[in-house]
Amino acid sequence: MAANSRTIQITQVREWQNGTATTKTDYLAAEEPLEIRIGDTPISVTMRTPGHDRELAAGFLFTEGLLASRKDLVSLEVATAPNVGEGADDAPSAMNNAVVATVADGAAPDLERLRRHFFASSSCGVCGKATIDAVRSRTLTAPNSHFRIAATVLTRLPETLRESQDVFDRTGGLHGAALFDSQGNLLVAREDIGRHNAVDKVIGWALLEGKVPLGDIVLLVSGRGGFEIVQKAVAAALPLVACVSAPSSLAVQLAREMRQTLVGFLRGERFVVYSGEERITPA
Amino acid sequence: MAANSRTIQITQVREWQNGTATTKTDYLAAEEPLEIRIGDTPISVTMRTPGHDRELAAGFLFTEGLLASRKDLVSLEVATAPNVGEGADDAPSAMNNAVVATVADGAAPDLERLRRHFFASSSCGVCGKATIDAVRSRTLTAPNSHFRIAATVLTRLPETLRESQDVFDRTGGLHGAALFDSQGNLLVAREDIGRHNAVDKVIGWALLEGKVPLGDIVLLVSGRGGFEIVQKAVAAALPLVACVSAPSSLAVQLAREMRQTLVGFLRGERFVVYSGEERITPA
Repeated sequence: MAANSRTIQITQVREWQNGTATTKTDYLAAEEPLEIRIGDTPISVTMRTPGHDRELAAGFLFTEGLLASRKDLVSLEVATAPNVGEGADDAPSAMNNAVVATVADGAAPDLERLRRHFFASSSCGVCGKATIDAVRSRTLTAPNSHFRIAATVLTRLPETLRESQDVFDRTGGLHGAALFDSQGNLLVAREDIGRHNAVDKVIGWALLEGKVPLGDIVLLVSGRGGFEIVQKAVAAALPLVACVSAPSSLAVQLAREMRQTLVGFLRGERFVVYSGEERITPA
Repeated sequence: MAANSRTIQITQVREWQNGTATTKTDYLAAEEPLEIRIGDTPISVTMRTPGHDRELAAGFLFTEGLLASRKDLVSLEVATAPNVGEGADDAPSAMNNAVVATVADGAAPDLERLRRHFFASSSCGVCGKATIDAVRSRTLTAPNSHFRIAATVLTRLPETLRESQDVFDRTGGLHGAALFDSQGNLLVAREDIGRHNAVDKVIGWALLEGKVPLGDIVLLVSGRGGFEIVQKAVAAALPLVACVSAPSSLAVQLAREMRQTLVGFLRGERFVVYSGEERITPA
């Protein structure tokens, strides 16, 4: 992941140590809003680290169920805010903060129906079960039950992700997500201030490359694994999700119901399997 | 923070170590959706760790600008989904997952205006500056310029927060937020699967206790400090926000524009000051 001027910002800070302060230069992980539209309709504004915005938009639209497949996507254009004139390169934060998707005739999501569905669900009781049912109600490819990966391959993955996170190294401020094959080869890694964005970026990359569903691929995320991460992985039919830290209760529940393998606390030679252990082989 | 059956879930997992797997009992940080309503109008569904839901709703409505002050809030009731009958105590996840706010006559937010404002902003270019301008356009109490805290007090705060995080100790899966006075005394600490929720819970606690604006108080968050955290702290007029890990570029920009003190990487005897260093004294 090559860092550029939009993923890192440089600033002067004061570092205090044992009561003594010195001025130094610090690197900050960039955070800016991105608007995702389908045609003229604004769908979402997410705070993200600039870079790979088309992948982020593709991944978001797909994993949130607004886009059924790659073929429904006609184009995906990065848009510059209309009131930014030429020669405005010195104001990068005002530029390129929108991605506009054009979808195939008949493939546009019925946003009104989605809205009604949401309120219908919530009026009959918001609970973990209703949330999981909403994921199950989508047309999904089941996670590949034949996929296998060796424990010795799994334990090597975090180091590979870490080595690819060059913005994290400089700022300490970014989450990482990566896709690997069953031999531990890295397909793609992305960083973002939001863990869900990093996941959308790698799944969006795969979607744009025509590689979804990802039946033979593993998703690794730095940090914790919440419901949202597992939900996105389920949408892409990933058979295995691994996180470096703890998963949540609802993430475990969803993975078990969808028969997806969920691994947590993947550190050194140790990890914890919460679901789908049959996909992991000893060596 | 007393843990209970809704903040922690117990499950059987398989722990792998050097290729050998054993069955053990594990504790998971609970994650469930919460719907926040004003009267009959659904405002938001957030994934949160159950517990202190009224504080979470109060903090969310206040820090997001939907509630101007404590006196506009008539009542805040935890609601049980209507289709859950009596004796349903064995299905806790279907219960108490909504909070309904009743606001004073004339104090209800104009949701249509908020929506129009959002689209108006985004159509003139989504960027960091527009995002910050949206915060500035709210009627806010400026952070107290007379507030002072000693560096030696500041460096003690993370340990105090950590000691109060008993769910984190068992699950490794929760963010923490806490409020302290200038002498380092802990007012309140809360945990949640979402860092922004933990912040809403402590600010919501303060709002319900009649302590907002928090002109003499410090907010500490575990982990990173993004735009959203600083935005919420600005809404409560907190003069100082400290985070254990890195802040984002937009968080630093907002803190500087609002003249709020922002401290990052608060670990051991070291910390980094990004904004408002005048509020920190050497001893």
